[in-house]
Amino acid sequence: MPKGQPSVVPQDGLTTRQRRNRPLLMVHTGTGKGKSTAAFGMALRAWNQGWPVGVFQFVKSAKWKVGEERALKVLGASGEGGSVAWHKMGEGWSWVQRDLEDSEEAAREGWEQVKRDLAAETHRFYVLDEFAYPMHWGWVDVGEVVDVLRARPGTQHVVVTGRNAPQPLLEAADLVTEMGKVKHPMDAGQKGQRGIEW
Amino acid sequence: MPKGQPSVVPQDGLTTRQRRNRPLLMVHTGTGKGKSTAAFGMALRAWNQGWPVGVFQFVKSAKWKVGEERALKVLGASGEGGSVAWHKMGEGWSWVQRDLEDSEEAAREGWEQVKRDLAAETHRFYVLDEFAYPMHWGWVDVGEVVDVLRARPGTQHVVVTGRNAPQPLLEAADLVTEMGKVKHPMDAGQKGQRGIEW
Repeated sequence: MPKGQPSVVPQDGLTTRQRRNRPLLMVHTGTGKGKSTAAFGMALRAWNQGWPVGVFQFVKSAKWKVGEERALKVLGASGEGGSVAWHKMGEGWSWVQRDLEDSEEAAREGWEQVKRDLAAETHRFYVLDEFAYPMHWGWVDVGEVVDVLRARPGTQHVVVTGRNAPQPLLEAADLVTEMGKVKHPMDAGQKGQRGIEW
Repeated sequence: MPKGQPSVVPQDGLTTRQRRNRPLLMVHTGTGKGKSTAAFGMALRAWNQGWPVGVFQFVKSAKWKVGEERALKVLGASGEGGSVAWHKMGEGWSWVQRDLEDSEEAAREGWEQVKRDLAAETHRFYVLDEFAYPMHWGWVDVGEVVDVLRARPGTQHVVVTGRNAPQPLLEAADLVTEMGKVKHPMDAGQKGQRGIEW
């Protein structure tokens, strides 16, 4: 819980207000739990501000994050806050009509849509969930990602999650949190359970 | 994203199913961001399962977590998932009629209510937000907390957040995640902003 006192005041020609409202690029990485969960928790704040929220899930699992998805969709439909658009690679991106051959192609299609949405300023808060993986695997060029994110127009906050976030992304990010595993129930032989893991 | 394969199978006399459904004690600690945010993100999963969720905020700040609070309350009232009870120390616990002299007394009152709710199995998922602090400061006895949590009846999941979580709590926990700060906007002179920090 930061107390609001920056440790340095940079010579960047910005007023405190301009600096305060600068759009953020955030990365949640590391081997521990909570990377995606914290990103979806942040989306609650964005929703509360009335901001349009865009979620892109760069994974192919059906089981994970159903709770977050349903909650965010109920919130988006409630009319009490911002809208919520939820895009899932695992079910085939909604804007792609043809069958995608493989995960690599699907990941690239997801990134193309993120680029279009950033250019159009479609959302104000983006969750690029597990997007660190396609960069790590070389499916999406991290140099291009950094260039596009650095040049994004307006006030669009972006949070990227996933293990092995590449170094150029970490360097470009305003905020990086590393979730470290200290202890996990699976170490004691316990499998994941409903309501906790998904 | 664990793949569901535990690394060991313990000799605890439990079936896989019994072990899978064992209630969890979880701790989010460390100096980085995301400790509370990930806990509230987990609460979305609990809500989606229809579980009664109880939040106890052991802090005295009005500004923080308004987004999460409003979102969880809208979800709780939607009738689409579990109920949500949100208790705030900062506004005076709702069940305490008299003025509380100080934070230490208020923290102890909060813990007393947690004990009553655990004994009555009032909720199925508890967020004890920033509860690590009153333990760290010696306001609430960590030995008693560990005893009560270890002996809690039924299936009640508990997540405790806050820096400096005491060692006996970490030892008793099933899951511990340490959120480590790698980079934060305040290091670059940027103050916290609406929609991101609260």
